[in-house]
Amino acid sequence: MQLTPTDRTRHRRLPKRGSFDRDLIYGIIDEALHCNVGFAIDGRPWVVPTIHARAGDDLYLHGAAANHMLRTLAGDIETCVTITLVDGLVLARSAFHHSMNYRSVMIFGRAERVEEPREKRAALEALVEHVVPGRTRDAREPNDTELRTTLVLRLPIVEASAKVRTGGPVDDEEDLALPIWAGVLPITTTFGTASGEPEVTAPVPDYVAHYARP
Amino acid sequence: MQLTPTDRTRHRRLPKRGSFDRDLIYGIIDEALHCNVGFAIDGRPWVVPTIHARAGDDLYLHGAAANHMLRTLAGDIETCVTITLVDGLVLARSAFHHSMNYRSVMIFGRAERVEEPREKRAALEALVEHVVPGRTRDAREPNDTELRTTLVLRLPIVEASAKVRTGGPVDDEEDLALPIWAGVLPITTTFGTASGEPEVTAPVPDYVAHYARP
Repeated sequence: MQLTPTDRTRHRRLPKRGSFDRDLIYGIIDEALHCNVGFAIDGRPWVVPTIHARAGDDLYLHGAAANHMLRTLAGDIETCVTITLVDGLVLARSAFHHSMNYRSVMIFGRAERVEEPREKRAALEALVEHVVPGRTRDAREPNDTELRTTLVLRLPIVEASAKVRTGGPVDDEEDLALPIWAGVLPITTTFGTASGEPEVTAPVPDYVAHYARP
Repeated sequence: MQLTPTDRTRHRRLPKRGSFDRDLIYGIIDEALHCNVGFAIDGRPWVVPTIHARAGDDLYLHGAAANHMLRTLAGDIETCVTITLVDGLVLARSAFHHSMNYRSVMIFGRAERVEEPREKRAALEALVEHVVPGRTRDAREPNDTELRTTLVLRLPIVEASAKVRTGGPVDDEEDLALPIWAGVLPITTTFGTASGEPEVTAPVPDYVAHYARP
C-alpha cells in the first residue's frame, strides 16, 4: 500500500532513496525510540524530541497538559514529525563520498487533541507498549487525575514518506584502485542488563530480560 | 562555562533537567551521529535529519549545493537544531511514570554559508572526523569540483541548552509497595564488524576495527 506523494513529501534529491510504502514507513516508526516534532511559532522553528506510538494509521504524542509543544500543536498548526534510525557508517575512498546508512520518515499534518476517554486510554497504552512491549499487563493503569493532566494528540499518517540508504560506498571510478580501505561499519542499538530499583522484589520480567525492538 | 539562557532556551518544564553548561552541550553534540534541522517556510515547519560536526564554538552542516534544506537555511532564516541521545528505558510501577533517560541539545540561530576555502575545507574535514575519527588521514581529499558542489553552513553555538534525564523511575509513594518490577534498561549504540568492499585489499584500519564514539 502506497501513500500519495505531495509537494512536501516528494523527494527532491536522490529520489531513488525515497519511498511512500506504508509498511516501510510504519516499520521505521515502530522501531524508533524517539521522534522529533517540528513546529513554528511566529515563523520561528522549534524541534522537540519526544516519544511516539502508532496505532493503525495514526501517530500519538503525549505529555503533561502544560507542555509547551503539545499545547502549541493542539492549537491547530502545521507540524512535521521526523524519525531517523542510523544503521551504518559508510566509508568511501574519497572524503566526498562518505555517507551513512539510515532509514528516516517525515510526517506532515495537523495534530488533534484526543478527548474521547477510551481513545485516550488506548493511546497511552500504545505509548507504553511502543517502548516496552508487554509492559501494560503489569504496570499500574492511569487513574483519573493522571488522565486529566495528560494531553494526548493524534496525527494521522497521511502525508508521509520514507528515505532509506543501504549498501556500501559509491566511489568514483578513478578512485577505486586507491589503496584505501572502504566499506560499511554497521550500527545497532543494544539493550543492556536491566537494573531494578533497590526495593523491588519482583523478578525481572521476560519482556525486560529479553527485550527487543520490533 | 555557561551559555546565557534566552526565552527560547530557558526550560519551561522540569527545569532541574536543564543545563546551559558548554562542556555538557558540546559532549552531546560530539557524540551524536545525526542532528535534526528545523526551519519554517511560509510558517510551515520542516525537520530534516543530517550529519553535523562541531569545531570550536560552531556547528557545521553540509550537503549538495542543490540541497533544499541548506539553500533555505543559507537564506538567512531562523533554524532550530536538535540532537538527542537515548540512554535508557525507565520502567515505573505506574504506566504514568514511565520515562526514558536521554541527553538532548537544542540550538537556535541563523546559519551562514561558509565561503572561505580554508574554513570550508576544515569544516568538511571536521565532518568526516566527527563520524570516523582518524579517517581524514586516509581518505582522498575533496577536489575543486567537489568543494564547489558542496554547500557548507556554520551555525554559532550561542543560543543553546541541554536537557538530561538520568536515574531510575520516580513512582508515587503509594505505588512503591506494588509487586511490580521497576528499574532501568540501559541502551547503548554498538558498532559491529566492518564489511569491506569486495575489491578492497587494504586492511581494516584501526580506527574502524576499534571504532568508538568520544
